[in-house]
Amino acid sequence: MAKYVYMFSEGTAEMRNLLGGKGANLAEMTNLGLPIPKGFTVTTEACTNYYDTGKQISDEIKEQISAALSKLEDLCGKKFGDPVDPLLVSVRSGARASMPGMMDTILNLGLNDVSVESFAKKTNNPRFAYDSYRRFIQMFSDVVMEMSKTFFENILTEEKEAKGVKYDYELTAEDLKEVIGKYKAIYKEKMGQDFPQDPTVQLMEAIKAVFRSWDNPRAIVYRRMNDIPGDWGTAVNVQQMVFGNMGETSGTGVAFTRNPATGENGIFGEYLINAQGEDVVAGIRTPQPITKLAQDLPQCYDQFMKIAHKLEDHYRDMQDMEFTIQEGQLYFLQTRNGKRTAQAALSIACDLVDEGKITPEEAVLRIEAKSLDQLLHPTFSAEALKNGKKIGSALPASPGAAAGKVVFNAEDAKAAKAAGDRCVLVRLETSPEDIEGMSAAQGVLTVRGGMTSHAAVVARGMGTCCVSGCTEIKINEEEKWFDLGGEHIKEGDYISLDGSTGNIYLGDLKTAPANIGGDFARIMNWADQFRTMQVRTNADTPRDAAQAVKLGAQGIGLCRTEHMFFEPERIHHMRKMILSETVEAREAALNELLPYQKGDFKAMYEVLEGRPMTIRLLDPPLHEFLPKEEEDIEALAKDMGETVEQVKAKCAELHEFNPMMGHRGCRLDVTFPEIARMQTRAIIEAAIEVNNEKGYRIVPEIMVPLVGEKKELKFVKDIIVETANKVKEEKGADIRWHVGTMIEIPRAALLANEIAEEAHFFSFGTNDLTQMTFGFSRDDAGKFLDSYYKNKIYESDPFARLDQNGVGKLVGMAVKLGRSTKPALKLGICGEHGGDPSTIDFCQRVGLNYVSCSPFRVPIARLAAAQAALNNK
Amino acid sequence: MAKYVYMFSEGTAEMRNLLGGKGANLAEMTNLGLPIPKGFTVTTEACTNYYDTGKQISDEIKEQISAALSKLEDLCGKKFGDPVDPLLVSVRSGARASMPGMMDTILNLGLNDVSVESFAKKTNNPRFAYDSYRRFIQMFSDVVMEMSKTFFENILTEEKEAKGVKYDYELTAEDLKEVIGKYKAIYKEKMGQDFPQDPTVQLMEAIKAVFRSWDNPRAIVYRRMNDIPGDWGTAVNVQQMVFGNMGETSGTGVAFTRNPATGENGIFGEYLINAQGEDVVAGIRTPQPITKLAQDLPQCYDQFMKIAHKLEDHYRDMQDMEFTIQEGQLYFLQTRNGKRTAQAALSIACDLVDEGKITPEEAVLRIEAKSLDQLLHPTFSAEALKNGKKIGSALPASPGAAAGKVVFNAEDAKAAKAAGDRCVLVRLETSPEDIEGMSAAQGVLTVRGGMTSHAAVVARGMGTCCVSGCTEIKINEEEKWFDLGGEHIKEGDYISLDGSTGNIYLGDLKTAPANIGGDFARIMNWADQFRTMQVRTNADTPRDAAQAVKLGAQGIGLCRTEHMFFEPERIHHMRKMILSETVEAREAALNELLPYQKGDFKAMYEVLEGRPMTIRLLDPPLHEFLPKEEEDIEALAKDMGETVEQVKAKCAELHEFNPMMGHRGCRLDVTFPEIARMQTRAIIEAAIEVNNEKGYRIVPEIMVPLVGEKKELKFVKDIIVETANKVKEEKGADIRWHVGTMIEIPRAALLANEIAEEAHFFSFGTNDLTQMTFGFSRDDAGKFLDSYYKNKIYESDPFARLDQNGVGKLVGMAVKLGRSTKPALKLGICGEHGGDPSTIDFCQRVGLNYVSCSPFRVPIARLAAAQAALNNK
Repeated sequence: MAKYVYMFSEGTAEMRNLLGGKGANLAEMTNLGLPIPKGFTVTTEACTNYYDTGKQISDEIKEQISAALSKLEDLCGKKFGDPVDPLLVSVRSGARASMPGMMDTILNLGLNDVSVESFAKKTNNPRFAYDSYRRFIQMFSDVVMEMSKTFFENILTEEKEAKGVKYDYELTAEDLKEVIGKYKAIYKEKMGQDFPQDPTVQLMEAIKAVFRSWDNPRAIVYRRMNDIPGDWGTAVNVQQMVFGNMGETSGTGVAFTRNPATGENGIFGEYLINAQGEDVVAGIRTPQPITKLAQDLPQCYDQFMKIAHKLEDHYRDMQDMEFTIQEGQLYFLQTRNGKRTAQAALSIACDLVDEGKITPEEAVLRIEAKSLDQLLHPTFSAEALKNGKKIGSALPASPGAAAGKVVFNAEDAKAAKAAGDRCVLVRLETSPEDIEGMSAAQGVLTVRGGMTSHAAVVARGMGTCCVSGCTEIKINEEEKWFDLGGEHIKEGDYISLDGSTGNIYLGDLKTAPANIGGDFARIMNWADQFRTMQVRTNADTPRDAAQAVKLGAQGIGLCRTEHMFFEPERIHHMRKMILSETVEAREAALNELLPYQKGDFKAMYEVLEGRPMTIRLLDPPLHEFLPKEEEDIEALAKDMGETVEQVKAKCAELHEFNPMMGHRGCRLDVTFPEIARMQTRAIIEAAIEVNNEKGYRIVPEIMVPLVGEKKELKFVKDIIVETANKVKEEKGADIRWHVGTMIEIPRAALLANEIAEEAHFFSFGTNDLTQMTFGFSRDDAGKFLDSYYKNKIYESDPFARLDQNGVGKLVGMAVKLGRSTKPALKLGICGEHGGDPSTIDFCQRVGLNYVSCSPFRVPIARLAAAQAALNNK
Repeated sequence: MAKYVYMFSEGTAEMRNLLGGKGANLAEMTNLGLPIPKGFTVTTEACTNYYDTGKQISDEIKEQISAALSKLEDLCGKKFGDPVDPLLVSVRSGARASMPGMMDTILNLGLNDVSVESFAKKTNNPRFAYDSYRRFIQMFSDVVMEMSKTFFENILTEEKEAKGVKYDYELTAEDLKEVIGKYKAIYKEKMGQDFPQDPTVQLMEAIKAVFRSWDNPRAIVYRRMNDIPGDWGTAVNVQQMVFGNMGETSGTGVAFTRNPATGENGIFGEYLINAQGEDVVAGIRTPQPITKLAQDLPQCYDQFMKIAHKLEDHYRDMQDMEFTIQEGQLYFLQTRNGKRTAQAALSIACDLVDEGKITPEEAVLRIEAKSLDQLLHPTFSAEALKNGKKIGSALPASPGAAAGKVVFNAEDAKAAKAAGDRCVLVRLETSPEDIEGMSAAQGVLTVRGGMTSHAAVVARGMGTCCVSGCTEIKINEEEKWFDLGGEHIKEGDYISLDGSTGNIYLGDLKTAPANIGGDFARIMNWADQFRTMQVRTNADTPRDAAQAVKLGAQGIGLCRTEHMFFEPERIHHMRKMILSETVEAREAALNELLPYQKGDFKAMYEVLEGRPMTIRLLDPPLHEFLPKEEEDIEALAKDMGETVEQVKAKCAELHEFNPMMGHRGCRLDVTFPEIARMQTRAIIEAAIEVNNEKGYRIVPEIMVPLVGEKKELKFVKDIIVETANKVKEEKGADIRWHVGTMIEIPRAALLANEIAEEAHFFSFGTNDLTQMTFGFSRDDAGKFLDSYYKNKIYESDPFARLDQNGVGKLVGMAVKLGRSTKPALKLGICGEHGGDPSTIDFCQRVGLNYVSCSPFRVPIARLAAAQAALNNK
């Protein structure tokens, strides 16, 4: 028979998966002999059992709960529902991972019409007793019965008005009795039955409610944001109530063993005398700093300090503790490893190493890799945020803080920068033509587009703050205004964006620059020692490449060549090339592009100072480069000696039904080998020249995209090798090169053993691989993915976090098959997933050589790679 | 050391893979003691070696050829290049599968300036000798050196003009000597060297040329059309020349042991006295029937007849033989199983069974499954085709022959039919709105679209002749005319389409109806006994379903429900449903559709008479149903009480970047569960009513499309089951149902073990699975697939023939994984591939329970399934 209920004395800190974080720590503290109110934990397995059996608590579990309750009564020397000295309990959620405030809690359970009387007598405090019962009825009705709070708030407000008082605490015991009567009446009216008087019924219903709260909408959203699986479930802790509101020798408080904002060593916390937790939250009274306790209740203070240090030493990490003092008696209600800012996390980890409490390996494992983002970008101070008026919120597409004057197009952004102004670019959506404007702006706000839209991807690459997909905006780009959150904002008005939260503020909020202190460098240095995977970056411009190198990138894993064609003097030749009808005309246009490409590659190689670079041949469908504006079409027609109609007709011919599955990637090189020839020439000539100038020994890595078949790769590779050999001969240079491919089409993964015969390396293009494996496109999935999250079909965005189950299976197959052909095959990942810690862990397990991510994610990837190496040793 | 060259005496008929069909049969006949000119075969492995080593014949192979040549000289008692009695040889291709006329041949090899003189003396026929040399130079220059034939034809024409004669044979030996001089001069001018005099050089170059001809463009196209792999290579047969043009006791001919057009038993053939093969082809003289040989050369005739019967008995099949008589001596140059019409194939196979020569199993294996198509559709007679003027050719999208007046839209087609006229519908492309018109027409011709375009798929389903993708057409649908092949064709003009060849003719060609004789039934009956897979059909209308049942379908494997919504009174409700903004409004519109759907399903069930039917829930993206015409939009707006602008805006919102990877399939049911509810209700109510009316025990099979995740299937299945149970209860009926899914997304195949937990059956939707696995869409791949065929990257259309290597790997995985969860899981295929014999063989090997294909492919599938069962026993 499975054990679904554990007394606190039966658990340990290691049983977190079964007992939840809170339950495991309560057990651990109980066993350390600390002053913990007695209680028991209903396990997470009971919760999953509840869901599996159609939201029922099985008889078996009910029996175990009853048995534990009997034990608890014995331990406390009190009886549930006792008319003289009743046992009262709290019922609290507690999942494996902390989900603060997401799930439900019920306090004062066990009170009923009879026991409230004895409780009043026993405590000699009728007002306190009736207030407890009132609160319990309200909480039970809300949480367990899902009645609207408004009914109860209205009754309370009416009572205060009737008695001519302002605050709840001004109501007398008699007033509260009246309130209780009205509460029970409205309960009966709405629920069709009396408020339950049997404490056992109250308890079972409360436990069910906590189980149910695991799946409330805000918990689902929180889990998705924090990568917490939906099938973990929550445990439920049933614990004897202690009261901090029983007079001047009672109180309640919260404290950290170190400062959670800065990491400074020293107890940091606050408390309130004669109060319960919710009074602290209500904010009517101002809490005291914890040091004041030494004066108020010196014995309790000493005991508290001793226990706090003991807990930190025991857990070897900064602790976040909740405590209550009932009539001079100190109780710990909770301890857990405290949440902290990224800066504090680094500082605490380094201090603990210096104090000899943890090893550098443990220090590295302690830092949440994703949190480093906070350190790499400007931020708003808490004060600035307090003063700013939030007018909306959308997707946190690229982290950082930005404030400036609103502009509505790239030209205006460039002009603002030239004039020395800070600006924020607001667009319906961005396109490759906006890149310069995005680079000139402090931040970018778009109406359309998700986390992997053009704006988001480019902004992350640049390290520019971006909030995307703010569909509530009503915008008129022509007239240069937009409406949001009831505000009408014109060009030149100030707004501020928080790219880490997605919030949008009115006005010019003050930003603080990125702060990469010594602790950061220490941790990263340890991480670099422990990790076994290389970390490269995805960068298409020297600026991005330089940024990434500064952040520790060991090379470029993906240099896309298409963005290079969008500058005004280039796009024109590109368009001519695309609309050419003969090989000769195409080659002529490509020849015009060659010097630009070569120049780009030289600049990249120079920035990299000999580090490797994987360059991907042209990938997007050609129609993406075609003009849409009438004047551009006219200019092109004139230059090509054709009519506007002819040019338009040719453009129309290039239309595709499903561009994502169309004429792109290496398919372009198969139909137009001259494109691969030009690009290869540019790459090899650039490498030779930089080698000669700087004395490097660059081995260019040329990557063929969208391969699905060995013969396809061989066809393009033959063109590359032939061209490269020709250049080598022309220049009399000593140069080598590698030719590899993206694995981004399911067929390529399935036949990786064959494809490896022709490849020096594989780079997993998990963006496209995810699209093809799921059969939905990033651009279109927005229309239905919300329904999928809501219905718990998918729990996380497969474009942000690799679907290890499905897409990962293909990746794993490809790794095995590829290495079966070439044991030394170099393997990496260059999709958006390359900077996601959980994906990096997967990459480590599956045996990749490197991950590649956008420049500002490089430190995250370095740390996550170290953690993956340590966790998978 | 590998053996690359075999003397004829060293081979057998079983060595076809190594020696090619011709080589193996020459060896077999040699060993049977038949009169065969001596020779040897260079193997297909030598050919693949030639390609693998960069188009070189290795030294090892050259040595083996030289050794075989020496043996041949000994056998013939003549020397290569001998100045007195030179050995002359033919060099012919011969692949594993017959590829008539696709590759190259060189005759009279061994002649040079010296040996031609001795050959003239030896044969005592200088004209014959010089003509042979002339022909050899011309053939060698053309085939081996790739010189244009025009140079030589011009010289010959000039010579004839100079001598005032009309035919080649009127030129004298002296004339031919002059011609030879000029031939050699032009050869030297163009090639920069003398015509090779060394017969060994001639031979090696000729062998290389034959190897090379394996990869000429017409051979590549032929292989693609006939599913012949590109890596087989061709063998080369080097054989002593015999001459049928050495006087009145010489001759040459071709004969079959049975009539290849009708199958009638009896030698059928023709011959020419004093002629070579090419004279027969030239058509200047009319060949004699073979029976005439009995009078001309009775001894040869008797010998021929004896050998012909011996060969048929030996090979136990109808033989196609080539023979030459040189001065009264009969030689067989070739025998092979003769090509025949489908009608003849059936007749011959049945006759051979009746004659006790083969078993029914062998008879079933003898019929090419694809060829049955010829029997199921009307055809043009050879005479009709001779009189018709061919004006163009495109894709043979749906077989059959059609002739009628041209119409340009569906309305006109319906009107023509109503008026009793035959018509051919010509469209830029068809859309679902054209279905009625397509059904009213004899045939359909489209300008755009491939073998799996809307027109093609629908026409095949209907059994209507269709030629698609005729991009050469210039069409104006408004003005009702099109131009093709220099003809201007207006509405009402007659054209004729051959859907089996893709040819388009001017005028009203006479068609002959389909002819399914007794032999057909006999063979199909045997096939049904031998096959282990079921054969179902893809049908959406009672008409198609009835047709399929008549052709032997055992049920419906795929009933698409979307076509049902396009009829005028329905599309309106459909559009209202799509544009509704509330669940209530959507449900109201769905309620209007319910009676139609139910009626459709009832009609289908009635036609099926209790046979099973798999119904797929709504699949396409909703925007496919939206109005495009202004007047339709206006009508809809009016009915919905909205402005035209509002309706247009809503339509625009439904736009998708990649509709194939968008909001479709079960994603519609996840976002709008009411759609699944309506469809389930229609299905279950229909089944219950038909069961009650007819006494069937129908178990509806409801198929959820586009599933990629178990939870997704479970979500939709829960809706289906809940609705079905509700209907069952309402009707008090005793009914069961099965819920299954399409496996058409790679992720579904990868996680088939999980998905099987929720599925009664899997149906492989290999159309979409191919798209996703290759990462290209059917609609867009046309732009680059031709380059892929040309460059031998892909050899066949993966949408017509399943890519067993890649997509097949996924299918195989899904079968294994699915059965690992549910050993009895029912598995089928319902993609376009379900009617393709090679795919059916794959389905048998991988263990599917059934295949499903369009109605007119059902007999093909039945036969192919029998063959697959026999071949994989």
